[in-house]
Amino acid sequence: MSRFFSEKYSMLVPYTPGEQPKDVQYIKLNTNESPFPPAPRAIELAAAAAANVNLYSDPECRELVKRFSDLFGVTHDEVLFTNGSDEILNFAFMAFCDKDHPAVFPSISYGFYPVFAEINNIPYEEIPLKDDFTIDINDYIGIHKNIFIANPNAPTGIALPVEQIERIIASNPDNIVLIDEAYVDFGGESCLSLIKKYDNLIVAQTFSKSRSMAGARLGFGVANRELIRDMNTVKYSTNPYNVNAITQAMGIGTLESEDYTRKNCQTIIENREYTIAELRRMGFTVTDSKTNFIFAAHPDVDGETVYRELRKRGILVRHFTKPAIANYNRITVGTRQQMEALLYALRELI
Amino acid sequence: MSRFFSEKYSMLVPYTPGEQPKDVQYIKLNTNESPFPPAPRAIELAAAAAANVNLYSDPECRELVKRFSDLFGVTHDEVLFTNGSDEILNFAFMAFCDKDHPAVFPSISYGFYPVFAEINNIPYEEIPLKDDFTIDINDYIGIHKNIFIANPNAPTGIALPVEQIERIIASNPDNIVLIDEAYVDFGGESCLSLIKKYDNLIVAQTFSKSRSMAGARLGFGVANRELIRDMNTVKYSTNPYNVNAITQAMGIGTLESEDYTRKNCQTIIENREYTIAELRRMGFTVTDSKTNFIFAAHPDVDGETVYRELRKRGILVRHFTKPAIANYNRITVGTRQQMEALLYALRELI
Repeated sequence: MSRFFSEKYSMLVPYTPGEQPKDVQYIKLNTNESPFPPAPRAIELAAAAAANVNLYSDPECRELVKRFSDLFGVTHDEVLFTNGSDEILNFAFMAFCDKDHPAVFPSISYGFYPVFAEINNIPYEEIPLKDDFTIDINDYIGIHKNIFIANPNAPTGIALPVEQIERIIASNPDNIVLIDEAYVDFGGESCLSLIKKYDNLIVAQTFSKSRSMAGARLGFGVANRELIRDMNTVKYSTNPYNVNAITQAMGIGTLESEDYTRKNCQTIIENREYTIAELRRMGFTVTDSKTNFIFAAHPDVDGETVYRELRKRGILVRHFTKPAIANYNRITVGTRQQMEALLYALRELI
Repeated sequence: MSRFFSEKYSMLVPYTPGEQPKDVQYIKLNTNESPFPPAPRAIELAAAAAANVNLYSDPECRELVKRFSDLFGVTHDEVLFTNGSDEILNFAFMAFCDKDHPAVFPSISYGFYPVFAEINNIPYEEIPLKDDFTIDINDYIGIHKNIFIANPNAPTGIALPVEQIERIIASNPDNIVLIDEAYVDFGGESCLSLIKKYDNLIVAQTFSKSRSMAGARLGFGVANRELIRDMNTVKYSTNPYNVNAITQAMGIGTLESEDYTRKNCQTIIENREYTIAELRRMGFTVTDSKTNFIFAAHPDVDGETVYRELRKRGILVRHFTKPAIANYNRITVGTRQQMEALLYALRELI
């Protein structure tokens, strides 16, 4: 760091995104991208929007918000779009957490939560999962801290039923509960309708996975209008024009193509179930994933070796070094052809 | 605010962007947008990029950085691209300012500087301009605080020569000096080459104005590699994929079209000089603008009336309520036709 860097960040360890190699052509199963292109209507609207970017984007994303709220049965002031869902997560950490309102989240979850806490100088606690990688909701009942839970969780892929999430929300009425539903469209249950019932719930989602828009960066939060207003205060104090005009247009086009999204999700679910069955047949321990990725370990070959050997064979998966999960790999579910290539390589190396 | 909003932000007053009305068709001279579409090559590359956004954007913006550094004679680790230039400004406030390293900036300047200071809990001082709206560099010599100066300044449009900026930088070797050159391509002098000489200088620029990309959101900072590394630490701790893939592609296309950019800037400069001459003939006091906007007041009609009367006539300009400049309006320089419409309306109401 330079001699000018503020001491407040001297201990900060940034998040490490998955590899994005541009040199070699890998079968990329490491960052949970969709193997399907964005909806044709989204691509069409992108071209029109690009020709007009000499004008600023709408900071309120009014047309996109209108489409979304019509489709999902919320009002326009109950939703906030952001530059990817990392931004809505950061806004929530900024707006609602501080020294007197610490954060809690599972110790094995999205690796960015502790980074958001660190950069915002927020005390936090990481609660271990059970041995089977599930979340014990009793750990969160009446905890009186701001709670961040990915549901389904990552990288385990395991989902909690909404009924259990609701117990957490109801038992912490004076703290916010953020449910990060990045992967919910692949078989999980959304808490979205609960925002009408609880004023302390924020549901975060993304267009990156099920809607094939990872590279366009579009996330959103849905919550009681007062929570949305607070996060807007943060947005208008950091980056008012946070969602560019082309991404707004693509978001609209994607929301006009819900059948396309549903069909793609169905294909991913089928490919996931097929691949999990094959992996189990090969002796892999595999969690019950409700996401577009598989979390798997083999009793005979350690996780890092699997990762390295797959890489040699042109297949990228994501390996984490945390001891509790170091034997596992997170494998994105792609096309059937990509899954066959993965299974072929794994059969070779096991 | 909700009962969950952190007290640390209880006094926060967010930035107010210029109006973006979507209902009525105004002649929009209020947010300093370019009247010219983005470069054709940028539009072409946007379409190709949109079709592939199921994959994440490159968090390092490698191709864009390569084009930029080749063109501007810096190395790849001396530049950082951001989601508009507001983001690079916020990164600088976050990375280098704190209770022991307060910020200073002119009292009349980009209205976002105090907001960045507030949200990051940074003490700051606003230094008045001279009566003629110029910056007195003596106020900043050896001030031992982190300095933020827009050059040319906004909304005055007035530029400092690089030689004077350099004296400020050289006299504050233990503090960073950020020169915000959002408007430099319309006749100002850039400090960019000074980053090789001073390790405490950050030059921020944007593709929003001269490069017709306001709606695509692309800004950047150029500085010594250690300062860039620190700001990357902040980026990777908040939003690693901050610049989407389509905007990166448009940035590349725009940098391949520098002749187009230069030609557009030349037209804006000509329209500005023409309009300023006409305004002065009508009795307006007009600053010596080196930007794509004009800052003007009339002795007989107050600033707010001018703003309101123009709005009634379908022309939007930007009016600020700060007492020292309440008599002025900031008028974006558009096409010659737009300028004629403005002059016609002003002749009517003066």
